[in-house]
Amino acid sequence: MTRFRSGYLWARLSVLLSLFFLPLLSVAQTALRGTGDLGIIIERAIGEVLIVETSGQTILGKVGGLGDLSHATAVFSRDERYAFVFGRDGGLSKIDLLSMKLVKRVIQSGNSIGGAISQDGRLVAVSNYTPGGVKLFDAASLKLVADIPATYGDKGQRSKVIGLVDAPGMKFVFSLYDAGETWVVDASDRTALKIRKFKNIGRLPYDGLITPDGRYYIAGLFGEDGMALLDLWHLDAGIKRILPHYGRGEKKLPVYKMPHLEGWTQAGNELFVPAVGHHEVLVMRAGSWQQTGKIPTYGQPIFVMSRPDGRQVWVNFAHPLNDTVQIIDVPSHRIIKTLKPGKAVLHMEFTPRGEQVWVSVRDANRVNIYDTATMTLLKSLPADAPSGIFFTARANKIGL
Amino acid sequence: MTRFRSGYLWARLSVLLSLFFLPLLSVAQTALRGTGDLGIIIERAIGEVLIVETSGQTILGKVGGLGDLSHATAVFSRDERYAFVFGRDGGLSKIDLLSMKLVKRVIQSGNSIGGAISQDGRLVAVSNYTPGGVKLFDAASLKLVADIPATYGDKGQRSKVIGLVDAPGMKFVFSLYDAGETWVVDASDRTALKIRKFKNIGRLPYDGLITPDGRYYIAGLFGEDGMALLDLWHLDAGIKRILPHYGRGEKKLPVYKMPHLEGWTQAGNELFVPAVGHHEVLVMRAGSWQQTGKIPTYGQPIFVMSRPDGRQVWVNFAHPLNDTVQIIDVPSHRIIKTLKPGKAVLHMEFTPRGEQVWVSVRDANRVNIYDTATMTLLKSLPADAPSGIFFTARANKIGL
Repeated sequence: MTRFRSGYLWARLSVLLSLFFLPLLSVAQTALRGTGDLGIIIERAIGEVLIVETSGQTILGKVGGLGDLSHATAVFSRDERYAFVFGRDGGLSKIDLLSMKLVKRVIQSGNSIGGAISQDGRLVAVSNYTPGGVKLFDAASLKLVADIPATYGDKGQRSKVIGLVDAPGMKFVFSLYDAGETWVVDASDRTALKIRKFKNIGRLPYDGLITPDGRYYIAGLFGEDGMALLDLWHLDAGIKRILPHYGRGEKKLPVYKMPHLEGWTQAGNELFVPAVGHHEVLVMRAGSWQQTGKIPTYGQPIFVMSRPDGRQVWVNFAHPLNDTVQIIDVPSHRIIKTLKPGKAVLHMEFTPRGEQVWVSVRDANRVNIYDTATMTLLKSLPADAPSGIFFTARANKIGL
Repeated sequence: MTRFRSGYLWARLSVLLSLFFLPLLSVAQTALRGTGDLGIIIERAIGEVLIVETSGQTILGKVGGLGDLSHATAVFSRDERYAFVFGRDGGLSKIDLLSMKLVKRVIQSGNSIGGAISQDGRLVAVSNYTPGGVKLFDAASLKLVADIPATYGDKGQRSKVIGLVDAPGMKFVFSLYDAGETWVVDASDRTALKIRKFKNIGRLPYDGLITPDGRYYIAGLFGEDGMALLDLWHLDAGIKRILPHYGRGEKKLPVYKMPHLEGWTQAGNELFVPAVGHHEVLVMRAGSWQQTGKIPTYGQPIFVMSRPDGRQVWVNFAHPLNDTVQIIDVPSHRIIKTLKPGKAVLHMEFTPRGEQVWVSVRDANRVNIYDTATMTLLKSLPADAPSGIFFTARANKIGL
């Protein structure tokens, strides 16, 4: 711009140019960045998300007007530019992480609890309580592509839908809470969905998970002990019941919060699983699905999350012991560190190669960032009652 | 811009504005995109890379002036904006995928063969033949941070360095071809590197790999059969020899090209490994490292690559049978498809969630894109003698 500094006319022009092109300049400044190190933090109470980056560990901005974000989750577009946020109130919001603007928002149901994005990134799926079912939206336009009512029984009842995940082969898998069913939807052709239904999987499935390779879908049961496993490579084999003693058991222990199954984790050949109602993390062998060990913990585990290299597992706990995080060393099954981030640790998210973990501490209004090698605090960022933390690397993962 | 269309003065101004701001406008247009779906294709003969995107499967542009790109590889910055390309001539080039410009290029040795990027994305490492050693560069500036000469023996000889990978805990691992050693460098403190050396690993290690979790480093041996395994979780256990019959064997079979170890692949608990000199893919059990099967193939396998969900393994072959790709179904170990992409299939890269695979066909001057579910050709893109294909999702992976 130095060329404009000599002479009156150029000075005038310079002012004019600034006025007209300020918006353009600011776009250019915002835009010149990669999106591989971005993420969002849900500020649940005020309907906003913070946009953050993990290279310099800073807050870039915020986007508001997203409605009720209690229990909100998010997925990302395959180019890692857009976040799709699923709100409790049935709102589906598309956020541009570069311009930091709300691109579009649709209220797609009365009450929703989660979503997923298809393998090719072109379909966003939302699971709904009221009315019970799954809706598919075009990821570019957020236009409704398909409505899958979760009808069951002979009176046309509709069930709440839980445990929705994406799977390889353009599939979505989810379970019907009231019906005790798991459905596999093949969305390869969006104009002719193929739905396969598995009935009598067990009473009141309340959440589901898919293994990181996208092969096994497992639903947790609220109405009885045990879990329902579906091998997506061998659908004809149907549902298999595993872990017959997993659950609340005969004694109906006081369970402060049913653990998230998303919080199950695989490290090497072992699965680390929150026990229900016990102060324990259970260890299972992948493939055989047999319990091989248990690790006593500080409280009832909620999220049991593996560092991406599988060497450590980080655990947070249910109320009232939710001020603590414990770190398990995988080969020895020992707890090697107990951290006290503050009151109401709600969620944790690792950077994709695992050198950092971000921990939301709701009642302290901050997000703590830890170095996972030294297990020490690197930095805290201010956030209004933060809950879920989601990094764009999820766009590259099956089932996230 | 419609406001400028009325009146002579505005028309004049509009022309002026266009002239001065054209560069700025083009920056803004280039910049407004995510980087999660980008990649590069090496055009080996003309020292250029194509910049591509996998959502619409198009070529966005190209960057030239990169020197000798035979056998070139690349890694990506953690924000997925920059590619670091390692050329055969010792050139290290940093490319901006958004502006599609060469940011910086340094000739850092006489002859180099590969590189890696640290867990935190701040250090780029290059392994060199001449003079033998590893150099570390600051990823932002490409300034030299550390020089690690690969000296060995009692006369201060220097060895060629091969099999360089990054590992969790800010480590780099590589092997010394002439010395038969593996070194582990802890770069947590870039001003005080810690180096641990493992000697007598076997004769003439020619390549190395690290398992996807970053735990096991395995070097292949050119001078004898068998391989050298290092468990990075238990360094004190030292090098363990595995697969005693893996290699060229007593009969010294005609080996057209030693298979890349990067081409080893893990699908579930099984490793699929190219046999040396045989028309076979070997199957091994991870952990026990015992061979459990073998699959007859069309030619001598070079890259044996797992689709990200581990359901399929795609294989290409050595000259003169390098016009073919075969697809193995993992659970049945059967070849379910034989494709003929054209002469000189050199490399394959899956999109991170596995719905597409891009295949470079050097002598046909094109890259073929396949739908992995239907195993059919989606599209071909023109490219000048393409070799390596690298997508930005590698930024999020350990050891890539």
